[in-house]
Amino acid sequence: MPADASPPFRVGLLGHGTVGSAFERLLGERADEIERMNGRRPLITGVLTRSRGDFAELLADADLVVELIGGIEPAREYLLQAMRAGKDVVSANKQLLSQYGEELFEVARERGVRLRFEAAVAGAVPVVRVLEESLAATPIERIHGIVNGTTNFILSEMARGMTYPQALAEAQRRGYAEADPSDDVSGRDAAAKMALLARLAFGTPVHLEDVRYQGIEQLKPEDLEYARELRLGLKLIGTAERRGDAVSVRVHPAFLYAGHPLSSVAGPFNAVTLESETITEMTLSGPGAGGRQTASAVLGDVVSVMTGGARPPAPPLQLRVLEDVASAFYLHLDVADRPGVLAAVTHILGDQDVSIRSVVQRGLGENARLVMVTHPVLESSLQTAIARFETLDFVHSPPRAIRVIEEEFM
Amino acid sequence: MPADASPPFRVGLLGHGTVGSAFERLLGERADEIERMNGRRPLITGVLTRSRGDFAELLADADLVVELIGGIEPAREYLLQAMRAGKDVVSANKQLLSQYGEELFEVARERGVRLRFEAAVAGAVPVVRVLEESLAATPIERIHGIVNGTTNFILSEMARGMTYPQALAEAQRRGYAEADPSDDVSGRDAAAKMALLARLAFGTPVHLEDVRYQGIEQLKPEDLEYARELRLGLKLIGTAERRGDAVSVRVHPAFLYAGHPLSSVAGPFNAVTLESETITEMTLSGPGAGGRQTASAVLGDVVSVMTGGARPPAPPLQLRVLEDVASAFYLHLDVADRPGVLAAVTHILGDQDVSIRSVVQRGLGENARLVMVTHPVLESSLQTAIARFETLDFVHSPPRAIRVIEEEFM
Repeated sequence: MPADASPPFRVGLLGHGTVGSAFERLLGERADEIERMNGRRPLITGVLTRSRGDFAELLADADLVVELIGGIEPAREYLLQAMRAGKDVVSANKQLLSQYGEELFEVARERGVRLRFEAAVAGAVPVVRVLEESLAATPIERIHGIVNGTTNFILSEMARGMTYPQALAEAQRRGYAEADPSDDVSGRDAAAKMALLARLAFGTPVHLEDVRYQGIEQLKPEDLEYARELRLGLKLIGTAERRGDAVSVRVHPAFLYAGHPLSSVAGPFNAVTLESETITEMTLSGPGAGGRQTASAVLGDVVSVMTGGARPPAPPLQLRVLEDVASAFYLHLDVADRPGVLAAVTHILGDQDVSIRSVVQRGLGENARLVMVTHPVLESSLQTAIARFETLDFVHSPPRAIRVIEEEFM
Repeated sequence: MPADASPPFRVGLLGHGTVGSAFERLLGERADEIERMNGRRPLITGVLTRSRGDFAELLADADLVVELIGGIEPAREYLLQAMRAGKDVVSANKQLLSQYGEELFEVARERGVRLRFEAAVAGAVPVVRVLEESLAATPIERIHGIVNGTTNFILSEMARGMTYPQALAEAQRRGYAEADPSDDVSGRDAAAKMALLARLAFGTPVHLEDVRYQGIEQLKPEDLEYARELRLGLKLIGTAERRGDAVSVRVHPAFLYAGHPLSSVAGPFNAVTLESETITEMTLSGPGAGGRQTASAVLGDVVSVMTGGARPPAPPLQLRVLEDVASAFYLHLDVADRPGVLAAVTHILGDQDVSIRSVVQRGLGENARLVMVTHPVLESSLQTAIARFETLDFVHSPPRAIRVIEEEFM
């Protein structure tokens, strides 16, 4: 080391599983280049796992603490202690941040330390960074995201003809899905990430329990067939939007028109579209997960802190969280083709102020299908209409309703 | 202002055309939010245009100078003076940066000031920021970009059936193309931007004259027809890649397979795909130009500097610039369908080590067409083969060769 070199930037690492060990390796590989670009060399000065290391010693030796343990405790306690000791922290823990984010943000703000969590949101896609840095210049109005690579892989396989159980098995075989996939396929993982994105974009606390979500387990091959026929993509889409002094955050399967930037995102990828009056729309996409990709996002955060590029969080705003918002829907009814059926259906929709954009009737006799696309309608109104459809004797099976996301800008 | 408030962050603005006035307006609109997020309020303390203002006064009153004049002089001289006076600077001037970038970077480094230029590269798409921040964690191997919105709009219109002159006229009517469109349609504008991207990604000086470029003026409707038939996108693609201790930077029309992230980018948009072993690939896309979009990128840079998030440039590396690189090509020959024609063609290709992936012959008699796709081949080898084709009596018109960009990762 030359005599005038800056001291190394000391990193304490909590957790040494897949991501932790990938992070340690990547940091070693990139240390020279990071030093060349920034004048300081990052160095891991302590590692804590269940079986080795001491947290107090790690803390004393570190400028920054990286948390890659996952779960709530002891990750939460370690992060709080580190920040209270004046240390900057980086975490990839979406579960913790989506449930205890406000507590962590508050402590970071009080202590004036940085709390970075790029890897918790969209894998290697730098949406946190872009949101934080661009936000000041660009008020975000809406975010649409594919933020769970597992479900996007499963839907991509289903679009190629697999059933849901086949596609899930293939995802598990490739290591994209856990043995217990429920957190992914239920939409809960995506909901946690959308809560974080909404917090960043709109500055107001949004907790996991504020997010309505629906997963992909109920999708049927025929939904994918319709998507193909209508040239629509079928994706699990997270939406966060600001509406006046309120926000809405939700996760649902949705049909996307062919030109939508998220429509062509296939495989275990993540992608996020930011919409704003100033920039119209901007899309970021990349791999959704993988130890090395996640490690790369974590290391990016470390370098941001090291070079002074991150700030403690701003105080939160307090916006209402909306439960019931309007969306366009695709609506599919199995009906008997008898006189008066269409009239009865449209009458019920009319009662709920659901305006129909297009309707197609297919098949004949007892096995006809009505396929409709509505104009935007409050979800509660549509649910009321669906409940009424279910009481009609000529409706054969539970009606299917899937949201449709249309081009908003251009 | 509360008694303990930080002083405003003073911005001197050079130029007050479309982007300059949009920037001043946007800064005014966003000042409250920027202050809330960062604790300091940006304020324009001086404006210099051809007819008003004084540069020395503007400099004395500014913490940072924004250059939105365009062109080489006096923009270059103002930026140099500002940096020598210890001021951070932001510029949207790709022409200046791609020709005098090293001089500007050198002065910024010497004086330890920040030089930001997000708006010079890909409109509102934050690729400079992502490259700089992610780069330390992620060595970039290749960049493919649609970095000229005008030509992407024209090609999108041609894909829908317009001729080149019709599409150009439509671009001019909508304000996407200048009255003299040559800088855009020749590929020169894209070449300047790719030189800047290569400089950022690989750390080595790349000047506009190092970039081979070819525009879209020579494309014919039949090229677009083939693209449609083969389900390929035809785009003006800039490529910057590192190959060992050298780099290659070039701009050409290229066919993209349907799943490529740039393939579905339509209209006056920009998009950049970063490839790296660590992250596989990441794509950023958004509007290519427009006063307000550009202003938003400039304001993002101002906020980066204000909050300490940008650094002076690192010293340059010195990598060779390669002229002759290998690409896969689509090759189209109008031939007479006589015995021995295919043998003669493949013989010439074999002599140049051009390996053929697929070949299709269409038509009969004197008006047949040979359409081939090659494996990657050095451009010089392909040019030699093409020159030999032109001497053959059964080849009716100049052979057409267009690069093909294939999926590299996944």
